[in-house]
Amino acid sequence: MALQRNLKLGANISGVGNSMSLWKHPEVANDASVNLDYYKQQALKAESGKLDFVFIADGLYINEKSNPHFLNRFEPLTILSALGAVTSQIGLVATLSTSYSEPFTVARQFSSLDHISGGRAGWNVVTSPLEGSANNFGKGEHPSHALRYQIADEYVQVVKGLWDSWEDDAFVRDKQSGVFFDPDKLHTLNHKGRFFSIQGPLNIGRSRQGHPVVFQAGSSESGRDLAARTAEAVYTAHETIEEAKLFYQDIKRRAAAYGRNPDQILILPGINPVIGRTQEEAERKYQEVADLVTIESALDYLGRYFEHHDFAQYPLDEAFPELGDLGANSFRATTDQIKAEAKELNLTLRQAALRAATPRGDFHGTPEAIADLVEAWFREEAADGFVIRTTISKALDDFVDLVVPILQERGIYRTEYEADTLRGNLGLATPVNRYAKETVNN
Amino acid sequence: MALQRNLKLGANISGVGNSMSLWKHPEVANDASVNLDYYKQQALKAESGKLDFVFIADGLYINEKSNPHFLNRFEPLTILSALGAVTSQIGLVATLSTSYSEPFTVARQFSSLDHISGGRAGWNVVTSPLEGSANNFGKGEHPSHALRYQIADEYVQVVKGLWDSWEDDAFVRDKQSGVFFDPDKLHTLNHKGRFFSIQGPLNIGRSRQGHPVVFQAGSSESGRDLAARTAEAVYTAHETIEEAKLFYQDIKRRAAAYGRNPDQILILPGINPVIGRTQEEAERKYQEVADLVTIESALDYLGRYFEHHDFAQYPLDEAFPELGDLGANSFRATTDQIKAEAKELNLTLRQAALRAATPRGDFHGTPEAIADLVEAWFREEAADGFVIRTTISKALDDFVDLVVPILQERGIYRTEYEADTLRGNLGLATPVNRYAKETVNN
Repeated sequence: MALQRNLKLGANISGVGNSMSLWKHPEVANDASVNLDYYKQQALKAESGKLDFVFIADGLYINEKSNPHFLNRFEPLTILSALGAVTSQIGLVATLSTSYSEPFTVARQFSSLDHISGGRAGWNVVTSPLEGSANNFGKGEHPSHALRYQIADEYVQVVKGLWDSWEDDAFVRDKQSGVFFDPDKLHTLNHKGRFFSIQGPLNIGRSRQGHPVVFQAGSSESGRDLAARTAEAVYTAHETIEEAKLFYQDIKRRAAAYGRNPDQILILPGINPVIGRTQEEAERKYQEVADLVTIESALDYLGRYFEHHDFAQYPLDEAFPELGDLGANSFRATTDQIKAEAKELNLTLRQAALRAATPRGDFHGTPEAIADLVEAWFREEAADGFVIRTTISKALDDFVDLVVPILQERGIYRTEYEADTLRGNLGLATPVNRYAKETVNN
Repeated sequence: MALQRNLKLGANISGVGNSMSLWKHPEVANDASVNLDYYKQQALKAESGKLDFVFIADGLYINEKSNPHFLNRFEPLTILSALGAVTSQIGLVATLSTSYSEPFTVARQFSSLDHISGGRAGWNVVTSPLEGSANNFGKGEHPSHALRYQIADEYVQVVKGLWDSWEDDAFVRDKQSGVFFDPDKLHTLNHKGRFFSIQGPLNIGRSRQGHPVVFQAGSSESGRDLAARTAEAVYTAHETIEEAKLFYQDIKRRAAAYGRNPDQILILPGINPVIGRTQEEAERKYQEVADLVTIESALDYLGRYFEHHDFAQYPLDEAFPELGDLGANSFRATTDQIKAEAKELNLTLRQAALRAATPRGDFHGTPEAIADLVEAWFREEAADGFVIRTTISKALDDFVDLVVPILQERGIYRTEYEADTLRGNLGLATPVNRYAKETVNN
């Protein structure tokens, strides 16, 4: 049975914004990162546009140079649970680190969110790029990049195992016979691996989606491999359609090599749409936000990717400094890209910092132009869909109000939700419980 | 300034019920433990009765003999966050263990809940009584009772320290000057203790209540001491007003000995109200539920308190077995009480098991009779208030509809919320940030 390919869309909701300076924009609520009404409004807006999901990013270490949004923001599972109670159809996806958490608790919390929301939960698996995180969790040392991914791999297997503790129909709840559950459908994981020994069973039944949808967001070699083995959606970032196509093909190929159906792993680049009535208006809107960035804050923003490296020590208007391996143990894919582009385009430090602090990308222009790009990336298999990021004020509102209707008219985006679960809308199969006996149809 | 003493009320919402068998009652939704609508309805009912808070209990280990409610229930922080979005005034209190969690994450999640709910979060500190919990968290051994309380003590100090990472007015957010926060009001905890090394700062600002309200629910010696040092409310359980008075005096005395104002630690016994138009009707309602309990399930229920000890090995109608130290490392206060009562009242195993499985207590009778008891316990300082538990069907509904109006008429319970935070309604002072400089008033 061939699956029809349908465009998918998510929205990365990020309070005062991904940039260092968007909070200074007159239209942005400067407390948005801890403002329930703002998150509610954004989630409902996304739902009104029939988007697949909202996405909450996360991090576990801050210092005085961090992006304002990171300093004071909701914890992902609590805000998503709150949004679950005030929305009815949109998916709820959050980042949660496998390096600094307990698989039993994480399995429980995502399953609970899936129960609360009637099958709309998704978990974005990350390994925590920032070294300082170790100090907030009493660990002597931040695990190396490679080790973090080995831990993540086993961690995801444990969580998926815990999600299978109860078969779908384990809870009989028959008042007459007094049988609450079928003991044959309760399973104890008894996992003993290299990093984790977790017995189970989980103290919550299998949720609506079987397993909450597993996302992954690392684009390094290790990240791609983890995604290909375990993820059902990959949140990535690419500057050009050519780059995006290479990434897309690479992940699908890797997934197939692991014996998976490549249609069951969706590639969703993050984009930073800037929409104007004319190309010039879009340009003006972008520049308005870029102009709010000071060079000091741009250096801080850049520095965070490189383990909070102090870039103020280098001359601003000379070539981007030689950094050796710096950044390889934190945001490896991102720092590799920044280094490569600086070399390729001959950027000064100032240029590289400002470029990083207000991400540019291609998705600037009229609603028609944006829709053309979306359609081209989708049709040419550079993407199965997109995650809309907020680099400028009202980016999500503009996308939903102006671009989605065009995509709908063109017949490449839904006008109604097809399903009532995130998994259903994403076209992902429900995982069969590993313990379930096959039913023979005669 | 003398504080006026006001009655406080909470509701322990527990899905299919605290008993083994309430789920079999015709009026109980048999999926209530994972039914958002049920939790919402209960929370709104409690809010309509102007109760101070709803309470979500928790546990980290199950097996096939566990109470049905424990097998398949929401995780506390996720369900409370959902309830935070659909209620506006009622407090939201959850149990979370200090033995199997990360202080940084727990500080964040409760602070986030406090932000989401506009100042209604409370944390019930427990140390996890069940040995099996260790196997779900990859620990070789469940820490001893004494050690668990030593860990808990340091843990609570760390969490309170993290909650002070930002002073109340740290976030300036001045768009003109571009100053998002005042760096003098950002504080790094740098805790290095016996059990934890946690740097900070927390990546969420100080919440509406300063600190979410700290509850404690252990009644052993170590539990009482932890409560007296760190808690602002104690959730306890007593069969008689005499016992309750002794406990009340003991905690207040201990708190005073630690230099605290005894008015700032509230004693809240859990009660199991059974309300009828007549005493006989109440008795009938109780018996209706007690009759649903099988002796097998009663033995399992009892067994859980004693580290899932198998009581089926003993003769049912002989004296309650001699158990030595069993239970001292799990629910110590409860197991001590069960043993003492069995001895004192010459109970058989059958009697002790049935008594435990359908808790009886004194609060049976007409609404007037219940109100009299509530008033007596309150006036005689056996309690500052109560936590209503659901042992029979619709216990909370009956209490709110029938008992609360009487307490209001008598002028010992509020008719409107006094404050818009849990702390405010409980009459608890807002903790001053440890780093805040004193303001001198001239």
